[in-house]
Amino acid sequence: MTMVVELSRIEEALKGLDPIAAIEDGFVAYSQGRVVVPPVGELIFRDPPGDVHIKYGFIEGDDFYVVKIASGFYQNAAQGLPPHSGLMLMFRQKTGELDCILLDEGHLTNVRTAAAGAVVAKALAPSRVERIGIFGTGVQGRMQLEYTAPLVDCRDVIVWGRSENALAAYKDSMGALGFAVETTRDAGAVAAACNLIITATPAMSPLLHNDDVRPGTHITAVGSDTPDKRELDPAILGRADVVVADSISQCLERGEIFHAIEAGVLERDRLVELGNVIADPLLGRTSDNQITVADLTGVAVQDIQISKAVYRALTA
Amino acid sequence: MTMVVELSRIEEALKGLDPIAAIEDGFVAYSQGRVVVPPVGELIFRDPPGDVHIKYGFIEGDDFYVVKIASGFYQNAAQGLPPHSGLMLMFRQKTGELDCILLDEGHLTNVRTAAAGAVVAKALAPSRVERIGIFGTGVQGRMQLEYTAPLVDCRDVIVWGRSENALAAYKDSMGALGFAVETTRDAGAVAAACNLIITATPAMSPLLHNDDVRPGTHITAVGSDTPDKRELDPAILGRADVVVADSISQCLERGEIFHAIEAGVLERDRLVELGNVIADPLLGRTSDNQITVADLTGVAVQDIQISKAVYRALTA
Repeated sequence: MTMVVELSRIEEALKGLDPIAAIEDGFVAYSQGRVVVPPVGELIFRDPPGDVHIKYGFIEGDDFYVVKIASGFYQNAAQGLPPHSGLMLMFRQKTGELDCILLDEGHLTNVRTAAAGAVVAKALAPSRVERIGIFGTGVQGRMQLEYTAPLVDCRDVIVWGRSENALAAYKDSMGALGFAVETTRDAGAVAAACNLIITATPAMSPLLHNDDVRPGTHITAVGSDTPDKRELDPAILGRADVVVADSISQCLERGEIFHAIEAGVLERDRLVELGNVIADPLLGRTSDNQITVADLTGVAVQDIQISKAVYRALTA
Repeated sequence: MTMVVELSRIEEALKGLDPIAAIEDGFVAYSQGRVVVPPVGELIFRDPPGDVHIKYGFIEGDDFYVVKIASGFYQNAAQGLPPHSGLMLMFRQKTGELDCILLDEGHLTNVRTAAAGAVVAKALAPSRVERIGIFGTGVQGRMQLEYTAPLVDCRDVIVWGRSENALAAYKDSMGALGFAVETTRDAGAVAAACNLIITATPAMSPLLHNDDVRPGTHITAVGSDTPDKRELDPAILGRADVVVADSISQCLERGEIFHAIEAGVLERDRLVELGNVIADPLLGRTSDNQITVADLTGVAVQDIQISKAVYRALTA
C-alpha cells in the first residue's frame, strides 16, 4: 500500500531531524561510486517559462530507489501560485513497489539544497566566519542562511537583492529569527565584508566580480541549475585555490564550472568532488587565506537521502 | 489540490473509453515533431533483476506534461507480488502544478502498449487476418489479443509459450472471452498458421525465425524494451518490405531494429515511423503479399495520451 504524505506532515517530520549527516553520507557515497545517478531529465517550457528536473537514482544495496520531480515556473507569482512544485517518489529496490509519495511541493528540494550549502560551509568555510553574505532574497536565500549559520557560528549577514521591498522583507523575517541583517544592492559591498558568500539567485549573468573577492573567502553558488544560469565571474573560479563540484560530471554540463571551463579559465583536472572533500578534508581548504568555490548543481543522492530521512521520521 | 487515483477507479474509467484514437493521435503528433520526449530514463537492478523506465514529455500547447515510471521485477511472483509497478503523474504545462497522480500499478502502461499494438495491426495487418499468432502468455500476450482482435475482425488464435501450465491458463481465460485458442510450444507452427503475429515476451534471443515467416505476414514486436531483449531473427527485418518504428530515435538504441542494424541486415534509411504511416497509409503495407514488421519500444506520448483519456473520463 502506497503511503501518500502531504506537505504539512513532511514539515512536521522535518522538525525532528537533522539532515546534515544524511546529506554528507550521501555525497561521500556518491563520490565513492556507490550511487547510481543517471543524467538529470529535463523539460523546458517557453510560454510561460518553466523548467522541470527529474532526478533519480539509488545507493547500491539500499532499501529504496528515489525519483524526484521538481519544477520552477517563475511567473506563477502573478497568479498567486508558488514558483516551485514537485514531489518525491520512493520505490523498493528489490521489488519495484511504490512505497511512499512525498507531496513536498518542492520543499524537500529546498531543504536538501540548503543542507548541501551547509555541508559545504562546514567543509570549506574559513575557520572564523566574519559575516555571511547572501545573494538572493528568495526561499534559498533564506534557507541557506538558516541551515548554514549554526554550523559556522555566525549570525551577522549582508544580503544582496535587486528589489528594496524584497530586501526589507528578508531583513524583517530573518531578523525575527535572530539574525543581524544588513541589506545592499551593491555586490561589491557583500564581498568587502563577508568571507562566506552564498549565491542563490536565478541570474543569467555574473553578479559577483573577481576584483571584489578577498583572499580567505569561500563562495558557494547554488543558483545555476541549468546551462543558461550563472552567478559568478568565471575569473573567480580561475583564481580560486580549490574548486569543488557536487558532481563533476554534472558540473561539466551546467553551472558555474561549466561556464568557467568554457571561458578557458578553469581546467577539468583542478576540480574536486564534494564527497571526496568530506571524506578527506585535506582535499579542501588548507589555509584561511585561500579562496574556495563550490558549485552545487543538485545531485539525486541528496533527494535519496532527504526522502529516506523523512520516511524514517514518519514511520518511526 | 492533487487528485490521487487508485487502480480500481482507473479501471472503472477505462471501461468507458476507447484509447485507439487517442493513441493514434499521439503517434501522429510525435512523428510530426509536436511532441517533446527526451530520452527514456532507466535504472537497472541486478539482484534481484529489475528494470525501471522513466518516460516523460508533452505535446506542445497541450494542458499537461506527464511523467510515467514503470518497472518490471520478474522474480516478484515468488513473493506473490505482481512483476510490474508504476504510476503516471500529470502536471500542468503552464504552472508546473501536480494535478493528478494515477496509481495505475503499471496497468496503464499495459493498456497503452496493447492499444499501440492494436493501432499497428489496424495500420499494417493484411486485409484478411487468417489467424492471430501470439508469443507470450503473460499480461501483454492477453491484452494485445483483446485490443487487436476487434480491429482485424479475427478471433482465432495460436499462442506460443514455454510452459504448458501457462498455455493452458491462457487458453482458459482467453477462451472465456470468446477466442478460439490453440496452444503450441513450436514457434514455426505459429508462423505457418498466422499472418498477424504479435510477440510479447521478455526473451533475450530470437523466438521467431526468418525461414518460418510466410509472405503476407505482419509481425509486431512489443517485448524488447531494453537493449538486451530481443524476440525476432534479425533476418526477418532485413527481408521485410516495410519496417516501422514507434520512435526511430529510440529504436536505434534498443529493440529489434537496434539488433537488426547491429547485425548489418537493416539500414536506418529503410525505417518508417508509425505516426507517419498512420497519417499516410501509403508508407505502410501496399499489398497483401508484403511482409511488414513493427517494433514497439514504447514512447512517452502513449503515456501522455492514455493518462489524458483517463483524466477526462474521471473529471467528466
